[in-house]
Amino acid sequence: MEFRILGTGSATPQLQRNPSAFVVTIDNFLVLIDCGEGTQYRLLEHKVKISRLRYILISHLHGDHYFGLIGLLSTLNMQKRTEPLVIFGPKGLDEIIALQLKYSGTILNFKLDFSVTDPTGFNPILETETIEIKTFPLKHRIDCTGFLLTKKKSKRKILAEKLPENFPAIFYKMLQDGHDITDELSRVTYINAECTTDGCSEKRLAYCSDTIYDESIVDYIKDVDLLYHEATFLTEQAERAKVTFHTTAAQAASIAQKANAKQLIIGHFSSRYKTTEDFLVQAQEIFPNTTLSKEGENFIF
Amino acid sequence: MEFRILGTGSATPQLQRNPSAFVVTIDNFLVLIDCGEGTQYRLLEHKVKISRLRYILISHLHGDHYFGLIGLLSTLNMQKRTEPLVIFGPKGLDEIIALQLKYSGTILNFKLDFSVTDPTGFNPILETETIEIKTFPLKHRIDCTGFLLTKKKSKRKILAEKLPENFPAIFYKMLQDGHDITDELSRVTYINAECTTDGCSEKRLAYCSDTIYDESIVDYIKDVDLLYHEATFLTEQAERAKVTFHTTAAQAASIAQKANAKQLIIGHFSSRYKTTEDFLVQAQEIFPNTTLSKEGENFIF
Repeated sequence: MEFRILGTGSATPQLQRNPSAFVVTIDNFLVLIDCGEGTQYRLLEHKVKISRLRYILISHLHGDHYFGLIGLLSTLNMQKRTEPLVIFGPKGLDEIIALQLKYSGTILNFKLDFSVTDPTGFNPILETETIEIKTFPLKHRIDCTGFLLTKKKSKRKILAEKLPENFPAIFYKMLQDGHDITDELSRVTYINAECTTDGCSEKRLAYCSDTIYDESIVDYIKDVDLLYHEATFLTEQAERAKVTFHTTAAQAASIAQKANAKQLIIGHFSSRYKTTEDFLVQAQEIFPNTTLSKEGENFIF
Repeated sequence: MEFRILGTGSATPQLQRNPSAFVVTIDNFLVLIDCGEGTQYRLLEHKVKISRLRYILISHLHGDHYFGLIGLLSTLNMQKRTEPLVIFGPKGLDEIIALQLKYSGTILNFKLDFSVTDPTGFNPILETETIEIKTFPLKHRIDCTGFLLTKKKSKRKILAEKLPENFPAIFYKMLQDGHDITDELSRVTYINAECTTDGCSEKRLAYCSDTIYDESIVDYIKDVDLLYHEATFLTEQAERAKVTFHTTAAQAASIAQKANAKQLIIGHFSSRYKTTEDFLVQAQEIFPNTTLSKEGENFIF
């Protein structure tokens, strides 16, 4: 599972920090989480193949989290995409997109499958053979959801050198599922433990942006492998964080600690801070395995 | 009058070419023409003070000409702007903006004065003491207008060293208007020609993007000082230009020549061309005073 950061900034535009957008790579497809203005240019810059995009998750309708979406959709359409695209986002987003498509005279070549997220409760929104995505409520000035992405434990990996050529596909799948196999024709038994190794273990990523400090998040994200949590302010501006429904670096670290997360990445830094070292210092006092988000950086976990 | 280019590209996003946006400086205020995605970042990059923005003109509702508008408006609002802002644009733009403001829970601090442009005919849309703006029809795949901006001849410039201190304001204005003045108290006559010099002459800028080659444009833009005309394709793709309702470099030059423009700037280059030298060669064969648009370049005329 990979998590690439395309934006480390918050609402006020800055040249050195782009607005929120994150790409999750799961096997051979991509999930985009939030899509601030200019996201399609960041995707180009980091050579992310947007044809591999399968799901887009939008947390809330503040511009720094979605103003780039219509541009990205237009570009996918110009690229003659035909594969369906699934968007999960707040009520109203489909209306905004439909209106913009209408006035530009655009009819999409691909199916846009839009699902409205519920800003209350812990809700499964997607389950496939490889992943599961759930939303959970964040407390912000408008409806906002966090996302919990689970990459399921993968099947057993086949050791090809242990098998004959033309090994039947049906046996191949049975080995992946952990079974021993006896080929009754050739009277050979393939012991699973000898022909396979463990697949990748389950991985979980939680995404929390934007939100006031809210301990009720903890229950939804227990033991995640990677927690991205906004940290718009330093402790000195804790009051400002509260008023604007944002979080400080120390508060994000506290959430990570209470949730027993393995790793914390903080971002969504306010434009008032020219440097971000203090965010790391304040967070690491509480949760040592904290990393600052950096433009374009890719985390493999 | 100044004309700054913030984007030289067309619909397909490219890292080296931004989408359409242009800033016109007239005296102490700014007019923004078109506002593709990321325009507010280009304004930041080129240190354009957006507090000086007074008018925004949107030619049509293809995304590379307006997807950056909502982001710019949101930023002006975060900057606590209170001065009204006037937008001229196609039918539907106000609906799109209103919907996006609604779902983000935003109430603007400033008055947004929106006027729908008429995509037919030659229409005055603004006249003040210093400028006049007219729209004219462009032939594109959807409704589209060009803009003709006239900076009026300015008043006579006062030679301060020729006047006494505490010179009455009323006399000052009369001199600017070209009158001689006799101060009956001090029995002194101020001859206008001795106390003033000519003000700036009238300047006219025409903006044509996007359009098929259309000679009917010529009548609207006769003798302009500066013509910006799109040149999406080279002559080799003239057929493609026609089908997509765009113009070639040579066709743009032909419009400039027929209109007797003083200078032509071409832009809106298709992403298929990695370099633009051939655009200049093909245009200059027909209209020698052609310049290629470059990212961030400012023309003073």
